[in-house]
Amino acid sequence: METIGFIGAGNLGTPIVTNLLKAGYKVKVYNRTREKALPLEALGAELVSSPAEAAVPGGIVMSLVADDKAVESVAGDELMQALGHGGIHASMSTISPDTSRALAAHHQLQGVTYVAAPVFARPEAAAAKVGNAVISGPAAAKERIRPLLEAGFAKNIFDLGEDVGSANVLKLMGNFMIAGAIEMMAEAFALAEKNGVDPKVAYEMLTTTLFAAPIFRGYGAMVVDRTYVGNPAFSAPLGLKDMNLVLQTATRSHTPMPLAQLVQSRLMTVVARDIKDADWTALAMGALEDAGLKG
Amino acid sequence: METIGFIGAGNLGTPIVTNLLKAGYKVKVYNRTREKALPLEALGAELVSSPAEAAVPGGIVMSLVADDKAVESVAGDELMQALGHGGIHASMSTISPDTSRALAAHHQLQGVTYVAAPVFARPEAAAAKVGNAVISGPAAAKERIRPLLEAGFAKNIFDLGEDVGSANVLKLMGNFMIAGAIEMMAEAFALAEKNGVDPKVAYEMLTTTLFAAPIFRGYGAMVVDRTYVGNPAFSAPLGLKDMNLVLQTATRSHTPMPLAQLVQSRLMTVVARDIKDADWTALAMGALEDAGLKG
Repeated sequence: METIGFIGAGNLGTPIVTNLLKAGYKVKVYNRTREKALPLEALGAELVSSPAEAAVPGGIVMSLVADDKAVESVAGDELMQALGHGGIHASMSTISPDTSRALAAHHQLQGVTYVAAPVFARPEAAAAKVGNAVISGPAAAKERIRPLLEAGFAKNIFDLGEDVGSANVLKLMGNFMIAGAIEMMAEAFALAEKNGVDPKVAYEMLTTTLFAAPIFRGYGAMVVDRTYVGNPAFSAPLGLKDMNLVLQTATRSHTPMPLAQLVQSRLMTVVARDIKDADWTALAMGALEDAGLKG
Repeated sequence: METIGFIGAGNLGTPIVTNLLKAGYKVKVYNRTREKALPLEALGAELVSSPAEAAVPGGIVMSLVADDKAVESVAGDELMQALGHGGIHASMSTISPDTSRALAAHHQLQGVTYVAAPVFARPEAAAAKVGNAVISGPAAAKERIRPLLEAGFAKNIFDLGEDVGSANVLKLMGNFMIAGAIEMMAEAFALAEKNGVDPKVAYEMLTTTLFAAPIFRGYGAMVVDRTYVGNPAFSAPLGLKDMNLVLQTATRSHTPMPLAQLVQSRLMTVVARDIKDADWTALAMGALEDAGLKG
């Protein structure tokens, strides 16, 4: 079976590589901190010591790293030369649409195809292969990476067309809407608590009827129970990074987004206060503490 | 079968009374504008010319009117005397929790029990009896009105306890969260459009996965298609009234709600511009037009 390169053995990369190994793929893994990838070696992955070593000529490298800078540093000339003509780089990180477009142009000069394939999944959803993928880029390359996304984490794959930036825009929209959902639950539950209504009862009613969606069930429980510190599935600094990307994209395209500004500001406070092991759901502390409640 | 009094033959009252008639109840209907209730007379309702005439001694009167003032004007001494000892007034309007509590105290002095039972349903959902009811007040009275809520519109009934204001608080939380959902979709879809992503594709992805809930499917389609003017199921002025109640309740309980302020301001603009036949979803025009798009 095909050998795949995978760059990034973080919270999401680890379950995805695990699934690829289970599906029978050979996987070469590069992670900046080698120690974090050792569990994958135990499962059969080959650990390599540079992004370029993860590539086979004409093959596929998937990357899932922290931010725009990390993707740019990974996808340098060495990786391009190692992948060579016919090679594909599937960039799964949540990054700016503009960075995606610039990377795609740079890849093309060297015969490599860049595909954007950001991941909608918390780690446990990726492990269970019930995540969602959005992809954009040239059609033939998308066809080649589809089976990998399915084997790795995705229940559904949504094709956003040829412009590689489109999948990144949709990923930013989704993360913005999750943050907005957390803010609105925090404000609503604060109102409940300040007016003698049990937030757990309100949560149960709203998330089994009008708002019966995974986002409200999962994050709503974290807001009501204040379980957003200790075991972050998606950290507040990463959430802040994403809201910064939303606002950067909004600013460049002249799109005023006051709700996005509000949640970005809430996340900035969580990071500024250096709250240890905060999930991005901790943005709910803003509305709760503003109302004089325990955040 | 029992004779029920029903006050208010508006967009929601009409399908509810229709269902009660179908279920075999005799219904006496009072509506300020008698003409609007004529279709219910054709279905077998008895039209009466004052709220008090809708009541039978010791019976049940349900009211579903526009706002706090309308409920207060309906639930005067004449209605109290007509209902008399053992009578129940089920107040289904979206009103302030404080108004509910004051009305309950006033009713009790005259031997009538006041129950809060606000309606979560758009007219078509009420007609199909797939709405949701939240109720609060004394237990025995709640038991008596349960079958009426089920026969009239409700698939689920959530009991918020003895404090009559509680159901009103939850109803305000729900309406605030719907308005928040509209705002966040409007900002996200504006971002999509300004960045070359088809909002319909983004809508389809987000509302079948992370946000697969009725609120996002229904209102999201109205935002994407700009079908929020012409045939309002819930008008912008009523939405503004509700957001005013949210902020009034928030202010009295010292609960800062910046997102609630934002959507209230958006609705105020729709009303200030006197946009004819605007549904409250028209608050989406704010984010769209701010971004230079057609609202």
